[in-house]
Amino acid sequence: MRRRGNGTIQPWRVLKTQLAFDNRWAKVRQDECELPNGEVVPDYYYWEGGDFAQIFALTPDNEVVLTRQYKHGVKEIVTELPAGLIDSQETPIGAAKRELEEETGYRATEWVPLGQLNVSSAKATTRANAFFAKNARKTAEPTLDSTEEIEVLLVAIDELLDLISRGTVKDAGSVATTLLALKALKMKI
Amino acid sequence: MRRRGNGTIQPWRVLKTQLAFDNRWAKVRQDECELPNGEVVPDYYYWEGGDFAQIFALTPDNEVVLTRQYKHGVKEIVTELPAGLIDSQETPIGAAKRELEEETGYRATEWVPLGQLNVSSAKATTRANAFFAKNARKTAEPTLDSTEEIEVLLVAIDELLDLISRGTVKDAGSVATTLLALKALKMKI
Repeated sequence: MRRRGNGTIQPWRVLKTQLAFDNRWAKVRQDECELPNGEVVPDYYYWEGGDFAQIFALTPDNEVVLTRQYKHGVKEIVTELPAGLIDSQETPIGAAKRELEEETGYRATEWVPLGQLNVSSAKATTRANAFFAKNARKTAEPTLDSTEEIEVLLVAIDELLDLISRGTVKDAGSVATTLLALKALKMKI
Repeated sequence: MRRRGNGTIQPWRVLKTQLAFDNRWAKVRQDECELPNGEVVPDYYYWEGGDFAQIFALTPDNEVVLTRQYKHGVKEIVTELPAGLIDSQETPIGAAKRELEEETGYRATEWVPLGQLNVSSAKATTRANAFFAKNARKTAEPTLDSTEEIEVLLVAIDELLDLISRGTVKDAGSVATTLLALKALKMKI
């Protein structure tokens, strides 16, 4: 790795912090920060919370389990890897297993953590916890909330890569988790 | 592609909309929505705006240009692909060229759009516009804001994949853009 710069990047120091917007579904934090150069930023805003688990689940036939559903942030019907919020007092892998089963009805026999991803490092605290679920089989019907309507799709790995290239699968966390899983599998893309 | 479900996923209908939190740096929209099943969600919140460009820039020596800087959302010193907000009245590719040059001092002779990525399809409108910048060469010094301190790193593609696997590069947009670029290059991961 070749580097330009003096290697002295330092974090900001938080002088004051408060939730500027706060309810059960959305929290925006406002920080007053002192930068390493002494400059003070009086009001830096970012989205707080919403950590989730994201699952690359592979069946014994080497098919990847995808979900297709409406998401109201982007207002699109999206095709993504299964994912869901980590409840309080739940571990990331516990959430991953629960969400895979609830959204798709699949259970896997082997779970490999693939690491954490930052969703938006400047504007959110949110982390995606990526997992590789091996030997995933359908064991039940999905159990959805009344606000959820989800289709389950099975695609070969090559087909998933084509869906990503064509922009059909365009959730950054899903695409990033796919790269991590393929790297773990030492697969060609 | 094999599909379970009846193929009838429909978008939600917005009954009322307002900005519940709104300033120059952060906007949270609150929608009242009617779901396809007739259920009404009175208050769905999501982050609005912040579309940005993200650049996989490759030098004539096949090195990828990375930035290392402090980001206050995750409160970490992060290593990522160059990226930056698209200003109003600026095109995504215009922002990509400007940000690559400002953050790193590099200019590229060939630009290939890689598509759009959703940053958080449920909780944000935000899109990343991914670009592949070929034949990138350093032509100037970076021009940074007083709040920015950025180191520029050059890594081989294999080294970038190792940094991703090890969790050093963990920005979902950067990892997703890398997969899109490698797929465009028909590279093994």
